Amino acid sequence: MKTETIEELAKGIRNGNRVSLSRAITLAENTLIENQNKAHQLIQLLLPFTGKAKRIAITGVPGVGKSTFIEGFGNLLTQKGLKVAVLAIDPSSSLSGGSILGDKTRMEDLARNENAYIRPSATAGYLGGIASRTYEAMLLCEAAGFDVILIETVGVGQSETLVHEMTDLFLFLQIPGAGDDLQGIKRGIMEMSDIIFVNKVDDFGSEKAKEVKVTLARSLQFLPQKDSSWKRKVLMGSGLTGKGLEEVWTSIEEYFELTTRNGYIQNRRKEQMNLRVKEYIKEKITHRIMVRYEQDNSLENLLHETNPYLLAEKWIQENFKEF
Amino acid sequence: MKTETIEELAKGIRNGNRVSLSRAITLAENTLIENQNKAHQLIQLLLPFTGKAKRIAITGVPGVGKSTFIEGFGNLLTQKGLKVAVLAIDPSSSLSGGSILGDKTRMEDLARNENAYIRPSATAGYLGGIASRTYEAMLLCEAAGFDVILIETVGVGQSETLVHEMTDLFLFLQIPGAGDDLQGIKRGIMEMSDIIFVNKVDDFGSEKAKEVKVTLARSLQFLPQKDSSWKRKVLMGSGLTGKGLEEVWTSIEEYFELTTRNGYIQNRRKEQMNLRVKEYIKEKITHRIMVRYEQDNSLENLLHETNPYLLAEKWIQENFKEF
Repeated sequence: MKTETIEELAKGIRNGNRVSLSRAITLAENTLIENQNKAHQLIQLLLPFTGKAKRIAITGVPGVGKSTFIEGFGNLLTQKGLKVAVLAIDPSSSLSGGSILGDKTRMEDLARNENAYIRPSATAGYLGGIASRTYEAMLLCEAAGFDVILIETVGVGQSETLVHEMTDLFLFLQIPGAGDDLQGIKRGIMEMSDIIFVNKVDDFGSEKAKEVKVTLARSLQFLPQKDSSWKRKVLMGSGLTGKGLEEVWTSIEEYFELTTRNGYIQNRRKEQMNLRVKEYIKEKITHRIMVRYEQDNSLENLLHETNPYLLAEKWIQENFKEF
Repeated sequence: MKTETIEELAKGIRNGNRVSLSRAITLAENTLIENQNKAHQLIQLLLPFTGKAKRIAITGVPGVGKSTFIEGFGNLLTQKGLKVAVLAIDPSSSLSGGSILGDKTRMEDLARNENAYIRPSATAGYLGGIASRTYEAMLLCEAAGFDVILIETVGVGQSETLVHEMTDLFLFLQIPGAGDDLQGIKRGIMEMSDIIFVNKVDDFGSEKAKEVKVTLARSLQFLPQKDSSWKRKVLMGSGLTGKGLEEVWTSIEEYFELTTRNGYIQNRRKEQMNLRVKEYIKEKITHRIMVRYEQDNSLENLLHETNPYLLAEKWIQENFKEF
């Protein structure tokens, strides 16, 4: 089998070839420097065709029904003639979280839908690096003509901050009636949220669901206004039955209408890119320094030092005099 | 109020003064370079008194009952005459996760116990930096004479890998009967685990609990042996009633007995420190580079570049010719 050139790969992606798209994302996820360089050349070719999708973060604690929501919502969007790509930012997301207690195939319907593309996350490396790889996958999907990119993450760590930084709109899933532990929402997630969707309402009865909606709406009052001047919304429904999903899409359209008009989205896209630049600088320099550290034979001379800070500082001074 | 000198702070910590300990941890968490340097001087003074505690990671998904387990287990240990410090590695842990829907005071009993010390995590910065701050807090607690350090984290992101790297033993909490989503255990967490504790057995009935125990034990067979040559254990009980907690402690003692005898612990401690050295080098260099990036006026000349990788690469080449 002949290996595709970068140009052939770019052409395949532009023609909507799924195999090319998947290969390109795999290339971007590869940690070898030469493959990373190839991926960056590829993105350089495709850059003019990126930036047109709606970039949407979807988060919520485990058990909130993210897979089912994404399946229902993704299918709704494809019925509207939209092309939908689903990515995951961290290894614990429902997309990529393979349980060793039983392997459920998730999002079966959506996976078979020809206008949808599902891709679990890159799992190697630290979270910042994974975020960069997800950003690259997003650009590749945009070049392939996807209209909506859904990036899934789990709302209990730091990955939701990273996904927030690389998307335009933050959709937070909640369930009524779970224990306090499950509802232990960090204020930070509520602040980031643009739309809060109370999921699985059928399982809990409309009384309970309304109660949660009122409580959520009340707690939103205490949060500072968003820079986008968008007013946070609480919606209710069910990913499983499809109830409320149409309203989610209407709100998303309203959000983009507002933020395009007031110029917020344009600034936000610039910030998204600037954050990536900083992350790449950190990644590249850190990588090169760590290679040097691992290969450093003079390190032996420092190992009598039992204070990790002093050891680090001495090594930096010996190796990077300019600092 | 006169500010304590580093020497006074060190003396206070060695004398078991809680105020000194808390001040020292706050100093270590401070992001100002001069305060970080002070914290490092302090740790230099205290280093001879560190390293004697058992460093234990406790993890599990939200809702598994971590707070209740730690409260019950911590109280058991203090009854044995041990001094217990509880730290949290990430902002989403039950220790530090303040819900805006209702602020429960957690671990009330343990917080009042004079042989226990509870400290929520540093929340500023990226996860690697938070891990370094938690490591420093751990060293300070060891110098203050604590025998057991419990480091809590949430087992759904990357923080459990960081906490695994800085501890001696990994304790993973599970519950029987929760939905598949909640039980969606990553293979990685199972691999890291030394002891798996099936919690809340009273809530679920012993039939269900036994079933989970058998399933877990079976899935453990498929995992590679641990470097420590410790055989992973599944235990059952309840943090709330105290059932099974004595067995957890017995297993922990067996673990340390084995790993001290075969030399694993000594190597592991060296690795823990080496990881910290690397993290400090990354932190310091990244910090200095980002300061330079933010202050760089020549950056304007690069902003016509719309490809984030090329922008990053050009900036590095202009600023760090040696790379």
